[in-house]
Amino acid sequence: MENDVIYGKNSVMEALISGKREINKIIISKNIHTDAKMNKIKELAQQKGIVFQFAGRDKFEQYAQFNHQGIIAQISPIEYLELEDFINQKSGKYRSLVILDGVEDVHNLGAIVRTCVCAGIDGIIIPSRRNVQVNSVVEKTSAGAINHIPIIKVNSLINAVQTLKDNDWWVIATDASARDNYYDVKYNDMNFAIIMGAEHAGVSKSLLKASDFIVKIPMQNDFNSLNVSNALSAIVFEALRQRLIDK
Amino acid sequence: MENDVIYGKNSVMEALISGKREINKIIISKNIHTDAKMNKIKELAQQKGIVFQFAGRDKFEQYAQFNHQGIIAQISPIEYLELEDFINQKSGKYRSLVILDGVEDVHNLGAIVRTCVCAGIDGIIIPSRRNVQVNSVVEKTSAGAINHIPIIKVNSLINAVQTLKDNDWWVIATDASARDNYYDVKYNDMNFAIIMGAEHAGVSKSLLKASDFIVKIPMQNDFNSLNVSNALSAIVFEALRQRLIDK
Repeated sequence: MENDVIYGKNSVMEALISGKREINKIIISKNIHTDAKMNKIKELAQQKGIVFQFAGRDKFEQYAQFNHQGIIAQISPIEYLELEDFINQKSGKYRSLVILDGVEDVHNLGAIVRTCVCAGIDGIIIPSRRNVQVNSVVEKTSAGAINHIPIIKVNSLINAVQTLKDNDWWVIATDASARDNYYDVKYNDMNFAIIMGAEHAGVSKSLLKASDFIVKIPMQNDFNSLNVSNALSAIVFEALRQRLIDK
Repeated sequence: MENDVIYGKNSVMEALISGKREINKIIISKNIHTDAKMNKIKELAQQKGIVFQFAGRDKFEQYAQFNHQGIIAQISPIEYLELEDFINQKSGKYRSLVILDGVEDVHNLGAIVRTCVCAGIDGIIIPSRRNVQVNSVVEKTSAGAINHIPIIKVNSLINAVQTLKDNDWWVIATDASARDNYYDVKYNDMNFAIIMGAEHAGVSKSLLKASDFIVKIPMQNDFNSLNVSNALSAIVFEALRQRLIDK
C-alpha cells in the first residue's frame, strides 16, 4: 500500500502515540535545533522500532509549501471506518457524531477535527464526494487530532442519516432560519449526530427534511457569517457542558 | 493618509455597508462573471458616490497571492479605538470584551473577529506588540466582520486589565490548568473581559495573576489542543446563551 506523507512535530508525535497507522520512516532535517518535542518523537520512535533518519535541505525542498518544521513521516493512509461498524461498536454510554455536508476548506476540516476530539465527539462522517477529504494538510491543521477520532466515509449522507435514525440515533441539523436555538436541545440522554453545512450553501434541503431537529446559533449584530468550525464549537461544547453538569 | 487595500467580495461589501472607513476606489476585474453580490456592491458604491473601475489581469497580478475574487478596494486604514473612549461610551447594558494575548496567526484573528461579532462581543483588545495586527488578510478572513466591532490597541495589556478592573469590569483569563470550567462563570450580570492566550504559550503569568477568574475548557480524550478561535467560540456563545435564556 502506498504511503502518505505527514509533516510537522504534532502530526508525527500524535501518529506515534496513537499507534493506529504503520509508520514506515521518520525523516528529520539536519538543519533544525532539537527541542523537547523532537526528543520525545525520537524516544517514541526508538521504543517502537521505527527508523528515523536525518536529511539535508535538498530532501525537504519538495515539501517547501508545507510548514513541516523539519520533520516528516511516511505513514500508511488513514483508515476510514464503515458506518455500520461504528454503530455496532457497543458502548455503555450515549455516543455522538458530527456529519459534514460539503465542507470545502481543508483548514476548516482540520479545526473541526480538533474541536471534535477536544469535546469528546465519537466520530465524524464525511461524504465521499463534494467534501474535502482527509489529506496531509488536514492532518497538520488538526495537530494530529485525526488519529484520535474515527472518520467514517459514506457514499450517501441521506442514507447514513436514515441508518442512524433506524438505530436509535437522533439527527440534528443546523440552519440559520431555524426556530429553535442549539442550546434548546437536550443532548445528554440520546445518541446524537449534528449536521454542519457547507461554508456558503448550508445543510442541503434533503438532509434538513430528514433530520429530527433543526437548530440555529442565535446571531447578534445582523452579521450571519460564523466560520463553520466556530459554529460547531459552540454546539459541541454546549452538548459537553450539559453532559458534565448532569453528572 | 495612505490607503490600505482590501480584497474579496465580502470585505468590500461589509466596508461599504458599515460606512465607517473612507473608500477611495473600487477596482473590479474585467475577467470575472458578475453575480448578485457583485451587483449589490456596484449598487452600494453608486449610492455612496464611490468610484469603481474595471481593470485587466495585469492590475490584479500584484494581488495574486490573495484570494481577491476579482475585486479590491482602496480604503482608509482601520481606526483603532482608545480603551478609555471605549470604557466611557455609556451603555444601558453590561458589555463584553475579548483580550488577545499574543495570538500569532492571521487566520485565527480573522476567525476570532467573526466569532466575536456573531456572539455580540462589544470590542477586541490587542497589544501593539507580540500579536498579529489587523491587515488585509485578517480583514478578508474575517469576512468583513472587522468593520462591525471596535478594535482597541493598547501598549500594555497589564495596564489595560488594571484600567478595566478600576472601571467595574471583571476579567476572566483562560488557562488549561484552571480548576473552574468556563461555564461556571455567570456572565450576564457584569461587564466582562475574556483573555485568550497565544496558540502555544497561553495567557502570560502576569495577566493570569491580575485576572478575577481563571477558567478552563474541559478537554476530553487527553487531547489538549483546541484552536484558539474554537476555544473562544465555546466561551462567548456560553456567555450569550446565559444572557438570552435569562431574558
